[in-house]
Formats: sequence, structure tokens, C-alpha cells
Amino acid sequence: MTELKNDRFLRALMRQPVDQTPVWMMRQAGRYLPEYRATRAQAGDFMSLCKNAELACEVTIQPLERYPLDAAILFSDILTIPDAMGCGLYFEAGEGPRFSHPVRTAADIDRLPVPPMADALDYVMNAVKTIRRELNGRVPLIGFSGSPWTLATYMIEGAGSKEYRYAKGLMYSDPGALHALLEKLAAAVTDYLNAQIAAGAQAVQIFDTWGGVLTEPAYREFSLKYMESIVQGLVREADGRPVPVILFTKGGGQWLEAMADTGCDALGLDWTVDLGQCRERVGNRVALQGNLDPSVLFGNDEQVRREVERVLTSFGSHPGHVFNLGHGINQHVDPSRPATMIKAVQEISRALHAGTN
Amino acid sequence: MTELKNDRFLRALMRQPVDQTPVWMMRQAGRYLPEYRATRAQAGDFMSLCKNAELACEVTIQPLERYPLDAAILFSDILTIPDAMGCGLYFEAGEGPRFSHPVRTAADIDRLPVPPMADALDYVMNAVKTIRRELNGRVPLIGFSGSPWTLATYMIEGAGSKEYRYAKGLMYSDPGALHALLEKLAAAVTDYLNAQIAAGAQAVQIFDTWGGVLTEPAYREFSLKYMESIVQGLVREADGRPVPVILFTKGGGQWLEAMADTGCDALGLDWTVDLGQCRERVGNRVALQGNLDPSVLFGNDEQVRREVERVLTSFGSHPGHVFNLGHGINQHVDPSRPATMIKAVQEISRALHAGTN
Repeated sequence: MTELKNDRFLRALMRQPVDQTPVWMMRQAGRYLPEYRATRAQAGDFMSLCKNAELACEVTIQPLERYPLDAAILFSDILTIPDAMGCGLYFEAGEGPRFSHPVRTAADIDRLPVPPMADALDYVMNAVKTIRRELNGRVPLIGFSGSPWTLATYMIEGAGSKEYRYAKGLMYSDPGALHALLEKLAAAVTDYLNAQIAAGAQAVQIFDTWGGVLTEPAYREFSLKYMESIVQGLVREADGRPVPVILFTKGGGQWLEAMADTGCDALGLDWTVDLGQCRERVGNRVALQGNLDPSVLFGNDEQVRREVERVLTSFGSHPGHVFNLGHGINQHVDPSRPATMIKAVQEISRALHAGTN
Repeated sequence: MTELKNDRFLRALMRQPVDQTPVWMMRQAGRYLPEYRATRAQAGDFMSLCKNAELACEVTIQPLERYPLDAAILFSDILTIPDAMGCGLYFEAGEGPRFSHPVRTAADIDRLPVPPMADALDYVMNAVKTIRRELNGRVPLIGFSGSPWTLATYMIEGAGSKEYRYAKGLMYSDPGALHALLEKLAAAVTDYLNAQIAAGAQAVQIFDTWGGVLTEPAYREFSLKYMESIVQGLVREADGRPVPVILFTKGGGQWLEAMADTGCDALGLDWTVDLGQCRERVGNRVALQGNLDPSVLFGNDEQVRREVERVLTSFGSHPGHVFNLGHGINQHVDPSRPATMIKAVQEISRALHAGTN
């Protein structure tokens, strides 16, 4: 067991004091980095990159070589589980992900297998082990999965969607069938995240990218309930340390209290909410992660610094904040911008925390 | 001046008691109706339909022939103003709207003319007059415009967008230039809506479709501030009746108090918020319009009725509710579904209001 040299991220998630606010970026291993584009070209297509443990490790660590980030996140796709369940994930050039076998009916759902994820997605576990070895305790490694509802939308639509014609159609015409699908997915996600933790993930995040398109009762019934069952089913300790669980529902700012009730350790927030107000609502029950508008990284130095300061001071000097973007970093961002952002986070947060440690 | 035979909609917007909750649907004249598709085919392209007062009138009235709706809404495009300012609106088959001359720099913005809208968009005013004549007092006619921020996003991006790379890029790199554009647009929208009111619009709605992609401070500074200046600049009376103003920011559920402070009469709400909670927040200061998830119309009779009941009972028997979808009706909805929805609104709301009139 290698000693963890930088545990700011894990400490902040457990609401413990830190010297400076830890920072990472959703999609930090991505197309905005020329070195990522080079490795991806070498791998061929996107899934080949995900399935090659050495190359997945390489792109996971690339942003850490450029920036003083406080966490690494496993490089993988959000749709590995439906692929392992036989939906046939593929990518069209210039398009988002697609499934060759969408799931539309109760019979389709009934037929779906739920294979043990440590075997079915052994390439993910290999990547986790390889990354942990290469990180060598430099920073913690985050594992992740899509939420059951988010995975279900892709499986039912067969692709990304704006209106969720089929997924919401099923919800409002045959809710029982949708629940059967979500139950299978909740079991699969629990198994998948536990396998990642066993392989070496030191924190996990559940990405509920499309929970925010639901009404409040539908969010509770079709998304949150299944995330709660996952949180309850996770093995939340490894190497003698807690393995914190982060829930991120994009557009879920209205439902934070209910999200905190799941028993998770932290909530990820998009940029449309005010961090200070969110903290007032959930108090010290969970840590908060976020929430700079990713588009701020199209701005100049002065604006980047000003917006970072706004986010940090809104949360204040309490323990329990992980700085992040409110959504993934945009592919068109100049790689000099995250450097400006991270420097501002470090300088401003050190001053904030100086009086409190 | 023709007597208005059904004033439920206007009464509800002014928080006066009604016998049943008035109902209309955003995008009620649209592709889900076969008769709309026939008229559109006759007109040729979309803008030709908007520019032909007789045909625009025909499609405006089509949904009223099918359903007992309590309001008509002018059939037009949201992007008429940028087109009148010389941006060159066009539509690619199967794509959204595009501009041949996007606005990207302070110099582009400086050059933009703001012509008097009654002349530059006389085809809209002709459509309003024609529709009023044909409605003959059956129900009130709603005029509308996009919000300055929403219009600006299309003008700057040159098309629809998911990430607002250029619009938010301008916001975070040259906010002064963006303010100059928004000032021109606020003047143009005020003029445009006043011209619609002079031509016969009996209520107006401002569609802030993309306000919800902003941070709270950015929403206040770049969207809400300009909507407030429009609300303050409108002539809010015609034919001896108030002309109510409705603000609709999709994804703006977190900012209702600030929206109500603009002095508008009503707020449109998307389906992600609970109407009863919203009413508690804004009290009787404004009416509320909404907020059935448009995807409910993919459901069966029982689910449609159940969701309608949930929306109506959440608001309760207070005056000041206009029933609507939380966003435009989807083109794939079966035309029998709105009939089920409207019947449920009428029956359930009559019972709700029975004790209070």
C-alpha cells in the first residue's frame, strides 16, 4: 500500500480542514489537450482508448503533468455498463454515442442480462489498477459511473436526446417497465463501483447527467431512489480510509436536500446555483463540489480570477469544498486557461483557509 | 372594438377569480397537427409562412378549432428581430435557424441598426391584425418576443448552440461589448412588443429560452436586467384593459423572486419546479403559468390525467394560475393527447374553483 502524498481531495470530501481548496476538473483528460488528441489518434477510436489500460492510464495522468490537480479520474466512458449488457455501444464520427440494440419494451428489459461487472468490464478494472500503480500515491484516483436513469435514457433512446421521447414515453405509459430496467441498472452500477473500489478507486462519483430533465416527483421516483440504493450498497472503505461517494445531478440544484438524504458524502453542483446558498441548505451534512461555469475558461485572466474568487468566497472558509467546473471542460478551451484557474484557486483559497487551520 | 367572449386567460394573469383554470400550450400551432403541416407545405418554407398574414392567421387558429383553448398565440419566429437587424436569418433543412452574418465583435455590434419594428416587421403586425379580426373576440391573442439574451446567443453563435462558446466567450472576455448588444436588443424588443400591442396583442410573453444556462449573477446582469427594462417600457393597456406581461426563463426556477421584482404580471415555469412551492415564494405578486412536462403527452390517458391533477392541486384554488406545458409541445405528440389534457384541466379545475367563486 503506497502512502497517499496529497489527500486534500479526500479530506475535503469528509469535511475536514485543508490548507487550500482541492481542485480537479470534470473531463480533465480530454480533447482540449493536444497530448490527449495524440494518444487518442494512436489508439484509433474512443472505445479502443478506453479498453487499453496503458493508454487509458496515460491520458488519465496527462492533465496532472500539466497542472497541480488534487485528484485523477479514471478515463473511461459513461456507457460501459449498457455495452456490457449487450446494447452494442458504438460511436459515429462527429456524433455522440449510439446503441445498435436500444431497449424499448418490457420484453427487451426482461431479456437484459446483468453480468458480474468485474469480469464483463475487466478492462476498466485493469485501467484502475494500472493508474493506481502509475500514480504511486501522488493524488487519489476517482472511479465513476453513470446513474441508472442517465444510462436508461441512452439505452432507451439508442442515442443522446434532447427530448427523451422514448424514455419519458415509457415513464408515462409503462412506469413498471422503466422501474424494472432501473432496478437492473442500480444492481449493475453498485457492482461496477464496488469492483472499481476493489481495484483501487479511492472515491467514486455518480454522474446523473439527465436527472435534471425530470419533474421533482419523477426525479425522486426514477432517479434519486436508485442512486440511494447504490450509495447504500457501496463498500465505502479501502486501505483503511473512507471511500467518499459524490452524487452529481446536472440541473439538480433544487433537490439538494433530498440528494443529501441518500447518505452520500458530497454533492456535485452545476454553475447555475450559488454555492453559499447551497451550503446553507445542506449545512455540514455533505461536502459540495463545484461550480465554475466551464465557459469562464473562454474568458481573459482577470475574468477567470474574478469568477474563481466568487465561487470560493461564496462557499467561504468552512471545510467541505472541492473546487471543480460545473460541467466538463470544453474541447475548445485553450490549455493555458485551466492553469490560470488553478493558480487562482490555490492563491485565493490559501488566504481563505489561513485563519481556520 | 369586439367584445372579448372568453377572458379567463386575462383574468387569471391579473390574479382574478375564474370558473376554470385557463389553458393554452406553448407551440400549440405546430408540427404535431396535420393541418399545420398541410398549410406549411402550401406556404413553402417556414419564414414564408410567418410572412404571409393569411396563412399565419390560419395556423394560429387551427389549434382553437380542435381544442377548447383559452388563448391564441401569434404564429411567428423568435428570431424576427435579428433578421430585421440584418443578420440574415435562414433555415437549413433538418437543422435549426442560422444567421449568415453572426455578430462576434464590438465593431459588429456597433454597426447593427435598430430599425423601427412596426415598419421593419410590418408582416408581423399584419398577422396580428388579421388574427384579431378572425378571432373576433373568441379568445385573447398573445404576442411575443425572444429575450435580449436569448436573441443575442443566436446572433453571436450564428445558430443554435449547446455550449455558447462565442456568446459566453464574449461575456467573459468583453462584457462591455455584450452589454452594448443587449441594450440595442432591449430597445428593439420594447419597440417590437409595443407595436404588437398597438396592432392588437392582448397579452405578451417574453421567451428567455437560454437564460437558464447562466450563473445567477450573470443571469441578473445579462438577461434579467434587460427584461426588466422591457417590462418598464411597455404600454400595458389596450381597449381599456390591462395588457399583461409574462416572463418565461426556461431553467429559471431558482430566480423567481428576482423575476417577479421586474414588475411583470406573470411568470412562466418549466416542469422541473413545483408550482405550489413557487407560489409560496412569490405569493400573490404575480400569476404563474405552467408547468406540465410536455413528455406527459406521450403517456396514456390515466397518466395524463394524473399529472394534470398533480399540477393543478399543487397550485391549489388561489386565483392566478394559467395552465400550460413547461415547454413547447413536441412534434411527435398524437393530437388526441392535448384533448385529454385539456378535458382534465377543465374538469379538475372546475371542482377546485367551485368553492371559491
